[in-house]
Amino acid sequence: MAVSLGRGAFQIKEPVYITSYAAVVGKKEGEGPMGKCFDRVETDSYFGQKTWEQAESRMQQETIYHALEKAALSPDDIDIILAGDLINQCTSSTYSLRPFGVPFLGLFGACSTMAEGLIIGSLILSSGAGKRCVAATSSHFSTAERQFRFPLSYGGQRPPTAQWTCTASGAVVLDTQTENSPRISSVCIGKITDLGVTDANNMGAAMAPAAADTLTRWFKCSGKSPENYDAIVTGDLGKIGGKLFAEIMMKQGYDVNPCYHDCGAMMFDAETQDTHAGGSGCGCGGSILCGHFLPLVKSGKIKRMLFMATGALMSPMLVQQGESIPSIAHLVEITGE
Amino acid sequence: MAVSLGRGAFQIKEPVYITSYAAVVGKKEGEGPMGKCFDRVETDSYFGQKTWEQAESRMQQETIYHALEKAALSPDDIDIILAGDLINQCTSSTYSLRPFGVPFLGLFGACSTMAEGLIIGSLILSSGAGKRCVAATSSHFSTAERQFRFPLSYGGQRPPTAQWTCTASGAVVLDTQTENSPRISSVCIGKITDLGVTDANNMGAAMAPAAADTLTRWFKCSGKSPENYDAIVTGDLGKIGGKLFAEIMMKQGYDVNPCYHDCGAMMFDAETQDTHAGGSGCGCGGSILCGHFLPLVKSGKIKRMLFMATGALMSPMLVQQGESIPSIAHLVEITGE
Repeated sequence: MAVSLGRGAFQIKEPVYITSYAAVVGKKEGEGPMGKCFDRVETDSYFGQKTWEQAESRMQQETIYHALEKAALSPDDIDIILAGDLINQCTSSTYSLRPFGVPFLGLFGACSTMAEGLIIGSLILSSGAGKRCVAATSSHFSTAERQFRFPLSYGGQRPPTAQWTCTASGAVVLDTQTENSPRISSVCIGKITDLGVTDANNMGAAMAPAAADTLTRWFKCSGKSPENYDAIVTGDLGKIGGKLFAEIMMKQGYDVNPCYHDCGAMMFDAETQDTHAGGSGCGCGGSILCGHFLPLVKSGKIKRMLFMATGALMSPMLVQQGESIPSIAHLVEITGE
Repeated sequence: MAVSLGRGAFQIKEPVYITSYAAVVGKKEGEGPMGKCFDRVETDSYFGQKTWEQAESRMQQETIYHALEKAALSPDDIDIILAGDLINQCTSSTYSLRPFGVPFLGLFGACSTMAEGLIIGSLILSSGAGKRCVAATSSHFSTAERQFRFPLSYGGQRPPTAQWTCTASGAVVLDTQTENSPRISSVCIGKITDLGVTDANNMGAAMAPAAADTLTRWFKCSGKSPENYDAIVTGDLGKIGGKLFAEIMMKQGYDVNPCYHDCGAMMFDAETQDTHAGGSGCGCGGSILCGHFLPLVKSGKIKRMLFMATGALMSPMLVQQGESIPSIAHLVEITGE
């Protein structure tokens, strides 16, 4: 059962547990400050495939298999897989999941997908439908850059606000049975927010207001505040968007700075890795949640955290047509047992 | 509460009602045999906007407003909107929903989106999270053709197996309170199915095995058969795919022919409207469900039906890379009160 706490905010009454999780990343992500936390670092950007699109699918597939293996599960044990990605028609996910034979619900939340999958998965399990589901997502630098910006061989200049799409994937197994695991205790579904940013090279600024909208709403609905959390984590606002987000929250009366982290800012060493404002992509938040934060919850070092993945819900064509960039942020409250 | 009946099949125990629905279509769809069943037929393919992408967003937006108005509801009465479409990064939905201010979960299921939204919406309401949600989808001939096939001005030849993407949108309001309305009694989530079809001009053939897989699984899980239904409806298999689907079902021991309908085959008069194998697109099944079938359930002429929307989960790039077309079909059982 879930109970409404207010607009889009729901408390999960009967436990939904995070029984397993895995993260797989590419070479550059493995060389960054978070490199040691991932289950696997693949140095071949093609993941042994012929195209980058096939590579991203293979990476996502391997991540899901890793998460299943860690819980001694097979695809037959999974009732539903929820997945999505950035690539047109979400093919990284649909081609990834072809061999699994598991009932599939496709999502599009751009870089908010990891949180969206955890929200839908935990609400579906709360209804009694199924015992176990998987939420997964991925992004790949080479598939995203050529789709959203320029052909890689063009060597386009990147402004300082630009972020670096991570080659990374995260997968989480949710169930209703594995006690003594981190659990999803509440969720808050994002609203589409658009303050008129039109610069596709400044995604962090476009997404920061969406994150602030969701978090402020969550605090108002739940009666909680930053002091209730060991960590408040955004997916890929990057350094510029993250600073803006903390400033907006401060204006709303909430000081998030003591416990605030952004996976995009954590992923790379901007000085030595030439990644400007930080990492981005569905896999950025997904892999750092699964590689870094969930193990900290599992070990008891984090007792209560918020994971808030943000997504820019635009396409290159709409930006070319002069449209601004609508964004969204979905929130998941994760609690240690 | 929902109860598992078998792999991906769930019975909705406490009623989820279809309290309102609406369909808006374009000129050609309005001139076809179903023309009179829609809430609105717009003769301007731009829907008063500057681009076709904006037109599709506007059409979807109007459809949702129609559905809300028919139930005397405003966006503030809606807890969650679930929507998706065919366009890259689902922008027809995200730009459509910007002004609503309603918590949003983005879906990608290609032409299966109407059924996917109804499934997730009814399972979420079954969990107790929220009282009311909207599931919506759309497609537009001009946005889809130039994205998936050729620029319209190129005037490419269409083979006889090709389908005509409908300019159409459907929206459904689900709630847990409006008795004496059609209700969603069970759902069955599709698996990704790929029998190796590589011809993007023969989507019906690619999707038919997915529809047969889901329906066969549903019959086995539920113990039901075609005789239990007044109508078994697929979204957009078209004439060729629909025939293939019925043949596969017959080989599995189920004769669906006495009650089988395909929204793609129903939408146009192929002889006079030059639409080859029939209509397609997310809005095809969505608009005929909302314009034709739900009113028949509401009036008691249909007591029990299955709506099964099929989706081809491919992109032009993956087809160009030589990949075959994975497909999916999601099933919703709708029962009159």
